[in-house]
Amino acid sequence: MIKPKGRLIIIGGCVDKGSFTSGPEENTPQNLKFFEKGILKRMITESLNGDHSKIEIITTASSIPKEVGEEYIDAFKQLGITDAQVLDIRTREEANDPANIERLRKADIVMFTGGDQLRLTSIFGGTQFHHLLLERYENEHFVISGTSAGAAASSNNMIYQGSSTEALLKGEVKITGGLGFINNVIIDTHFVRRGRIGRLMYACASNPINLGIGLGEDTGLLIKDGHSMEAIGSGLVILVDGTHMRHTNITDVQMGEPVSIENLAVNVLSFGDKFDLKTKTMNFHDIIKTAEAE
Amino acid sequence: MIKPKGRLIIIGGCVDKGSFTSGPEENTPQNLKFFEKGILKRMITESLNGDHSKIEIITTASSIPKEVGEEYIDAFKQLGITDAQVLDIRTREEANDPANIERLRKADIVMFTGGDQLRLTSIFGGTQFHHLLLERYENEHFVISGTSAGAAASSNNMIYQGSSTEALLKGEVKITGGLGFINNVIIDTHFVRRGRIGRLMYACASNPINLGIGLGEDTGLLIKDGHSMEAIGSGLVILVDGTHMRHTNITDVQMGEPVSIENLAVNVLSFGDKFDLKTKTMNFHDIIKTAEAE
Repeated sequence: MIKPKGRLIIIGGCVDKGSFTSGPEENTPQNLKFFEKGILKRMITESLNGDHSKIEIITTASSIPKEVGEEYIDAFKQLGITDAQVLDIRTREEANDPANIERLRKADIVMFTGGDQLRLTSIFGGTQFHHLLLERYENEHFVISGTSAGAAASSNNMIYQGSSTEALLKGEVKITGGLGFINNVIIDTHFVRRGRIGRLMYACASNPINLGIGLGEDTGLLIKDGHSMEAIGSGLVILVDGTHMRHTNITDVQMGEPVSIENLAVNVLSFGDKFDLKTKTMNFHDIIKTAEAE
Repeated sequence: MIKPKGRLIIIGGCVDKGSFTSGPEENTPQNLKFFEKGILKRMITESLNGDHSKIEIITTASSIPKEVGEEYIDAFKQLGITDAQVLDIRTREEANDPANIERLRKADIVMFTGGDQLRLTSIFGGTQFHHLLLERYENEHFVISGTSAGAAASSNNMIYQGSSTEALLKGEVKITGGLGFINNVIIDTHFVRRGRIGRLMYACASNPINLGIGLGEDTGLLIKDGHSMEAIGSGLVILVDGTHMRHTNITDVQMGEPVSIENLAVNVLSFGDKFDLKTKTMNFHDIIKTAEAE
């Protein structure tokens, strides 16, 4: 995809245990409060049909799809959206089912919930649903968004496992192919609470063409034209850029041994800050405002 | 890359311990005999300037670059090529060095030797050399070839480690981002001698959009237009296609536990057989000849 017409919104998950992976939680309603802070709202304003958008909430990654789906429908309702539905595809057969393909064809926004990203790739990878997602994202003003697992799966290379504390031991970070809405990045979520910077640093050292994107909780990144990025939400986005990495011993050490890395660049973006994936340059929110005012 | 103008030739390595990773070998000259069987020759006929091509042999993956480089220069000489040189880039600095970029700009064919594919991605990833490779491959009739590690690194998702016997235990196969000349495939080499089919099956199950390509020794695949593939050389090419995979328990099992997979399709190509990556259809060598004769 040289210059996709679609918008991609990736979100780092919710503060309150928000990846919904492990059974119903006491505070599920609170998990969604970050949407009130603007991310969900922004998803709607970025869509061609605004408040009238048709939204499909894809709960495939989750092991508790019903609970998660209902929460999202409620949240969208609070924002005035009446046409949001849950599309809980559980098998590859369902991902090739013409009825589901038709629903995708009519949607303005697709939202992938949290859960296990490997479920997203092993169920959707190479199906008709997946191909239509790629096609619509490339050719139409179509919004794809994902939180937590849904965000992690959106790039071409996807981290699916790996201990935070041992991330810099060779081979600990597990990567495979993602859904490929964006290339040359690798995304990690729940970045602040789970201390995952080591995973991104390992992934970048193994191939510095991939910009590492670490999304904090309650934080997202809006990507336009496949390269123009803007931080949204209340937290921080950490970018790990290996373009100017000078050296790593990753090929010299044995599996399980610690990896050394020299000179990774790290950028920290907060609300409104921008970053261009092509030029690897950052634009601060205030600077932009001042420039525009002149 | 929608329809790259370049040609990609990936080779599974040589029969006689041919990945050149582990010190000089007794039979190094014999390692190259597969070239006489047509792969190296084909590389030249696919190049715009034929016998007059300028070839850069990139020995970066190898720990014995001098020996490997000389063998290739000799082999090319035997085929009448006088303008083949070794470009042994060892650091990221050298991969940004204007003199090396200039050499790449003038080359008709670039050949990546065997060794460690993680060395290729960690040294070239995101450098000017890497970007120019991608740019020339997309826009020019330019030949990129790679054997063993050089082949493995050419796709967007790259296997860099993993035991053959334990490949289907979750997490055993190690993947990271490759050099990205081709998307939606994952490549393994030395396929027959090292019994690696489990690695490809695991990689495909984790994301079936990636066609698994297993290259036997003395065997290659020529890829035109980014999707039209033709088997060359004397051995077999194994393709693992997960498009119609029905189910896998990859998300249910713990790390280190065995993974079950239902219904992967496997194709076996030999010399002259073709496969289309877009339509996932195979054309047998003889059938094509008959069809053309009519």
